[in-house]
Amino acid sequence: MKLLRVGTAGAERPALLDAEGTLRDLSGIVPEIDGALLADGAALGRIRAATEAGELPALDATGLRIGPPLARIGKVVCIGLNYHDHARETGAEPPAEPVIFFKAADTVVGPNDTVLVPRGSTKTDWEVELAIVIGRTARYLESREEALAHVAGYAVSHDVSEREFQIERGGTWDKGKNCETFNPFGPWLVTADEVPDPQNLSLKLWVNGELKQDGTTAEQIFPVAEVVRYVSHFMTLYPGDVINTGTPAGVALGQPDPKPFLRSGDVVELEIEGLGRQRQELKDA
Amino acid sequence: MKLLRVGTAGAERPALLDAEGTLRDLSGIVPEIDGALLADGAALGRIRAATEAGELPALDATGLRIGPPLARIGKVVCIGLNYHDHARETGAEPPAEPVIFFKAADTVVGPNDTVLVPRGSTKTDWEVELAIVIGRTARYLESREEALAHVAGYAVSHDVSEREFQIERGGTWDKGKNCETFNPFGPWLVTADEVPDPQNLSLKLWVNGELKQDGTTAEQIFPVAEVVRYVSHFMTLYPGDVINTGTPAGVALGQPDPKPFLRSGDVVELEIEGLGRQRQELKDA
Repeated sequence: MKLLRVGTAGAERPALLDAEGTLRDLSGIVPEIDGALLADGAALGRIRAATEAGELPALDATGLRIGPPLARIGKVVCIGLNYHDHARETGAEPPAEPVIFFKAADTVVGPNDTVLVPRGSTKTDWEVELAIVIGRTARYLESREEALAHVAGYAVSHDVSEREFQIERGGTWDKGKNCETFNPFGPWLVTADEVPDPQNLSLKLWVNGELKQDGTTAEQIFPVAEVVRYVSHFMTLYPGDVINTGTPAGVALGQPDPKPFLRSGDVVELEIEGLGRQRQELKDA
Repeated sequence: MKLLRVGTAGAERPALLDAEGTLRDLSGIVPEIDGALLADGAALGRIRAATEAGELPALDATGLRIGPPLARIGKVVCIGLNYHDHARETGAEPPAEPVIFFKAADTVVGPNDTVLVPRGSTKTDWEVELAIVIGRTARYLESREEALAHVAGYAVSHDVSEREFQIERGGTWDKGKNCETFNPFGPWLVTADEVPDPQNLSLKLWVNGELKQDGTTAEQIFPVAEVVRYVSHFMTLYPGDVINTGTPAGVALGQPDPKPFLRSGDVVELEIEGLGRQRQELKDA
């Protein structure tokens, strides 16, 4: 299923995009798309049954904003340097074990919302990422198989990053990862049953129409199942938590000088195979 | 005012500790102690008025668990190496600007709840910290005075840390800061009007009755007002966000070998002048 949330920011309603591409209203069946829903097999079953029975009312998509496909996100765990090609372009050694950092959940915005270039920023950068959405509480998982059973679904995530704040201002990467609007998310939360092989998805990102990132999750150093297993040994993952699994090569930081960092007026588009497409215009904060 | 939340985990009710030390029930006046309340001057005024009028019913404190004094915490921003004496003991240079890392809000537990030693941990450490609770949305604050106007209050925070995960496992400090139960918080949220000088508070921590940390916020490299001002340039702070402002000297990491890291059965007590006292027993996860 492709679950989404539509409407003005803070007042989104749950919806579903059906196999014919028609938007369907879920608000008569479930109150919200959130961790509680993802942990509730019966509620997900009701959505499935209503979809198959053709009982869900169509929604007019004209002019409708798409919000993030998940409400009340708990935490956003991020994996750094998780693609062989991206580690090479940044001059970093491939990490021996996953690098963990955080984005605050309040950085999450809709997939087509404006992204703000922070005041004082000269190095705002893009990163297309496959996001994992957690569906079951995960502690100390032992195997990759067990890990996959805790994944509710996947989504496109844009891990917007300010490289000076991240790298040159002391301390951890978090300083450049948490500016307002720095995590466009969606359009859809695609349930795991519709993503049979998360390690074979193409990821693309364009800036002002020019293709900048053209990768595949096959290049991930630590695959989805290993990321979930590993992270569960350092923190407990709850339904409604998100893991951004890292970005492939092609970010501004990896380009020759002068590096083409983002500015007000730029347009970023990004897409992951089967998970949908985002488009953001940059503006000054 | 000393605001708190009492009751079983997940079912706490709002309460107030009055000037005579009597616990008063706030559930008839406000639904919850959270960011929305802290941003609502009228609601805080109703609590104040009811307190002064003696209208709040007393609560029997016997056997009552104290929860974290703030519900629905947004994000927990942490400042690293923010005390001159602690930077010295860890062999680190005092940072030129604040070091930022994160704890997930789901690590927050009550001030006297059990703390779990993570599986595989041999370096679980303590850190008594002054926590700032944000009361107004803060973006790009210009002055320290403006910053203080965005502070709703203060609380005791225990920034439990696993040093191997934090320092020796690759990536950022977040890996050792986010284990389950790693942020005991409270007992009280003391409103800022009752903390006239946050830079003159003594902080103490004991392990199994032995005094380990005995510091003062006067040793902070970046004072509370500067921390709030600075952080607001890298991320937006919202009502109900928390900032842990760093720990003074005396952590296990700063001791000679063999360093006395925490084990199951240990008891940690911590206290900040005017903000109350915590007590946790350690158990294996």
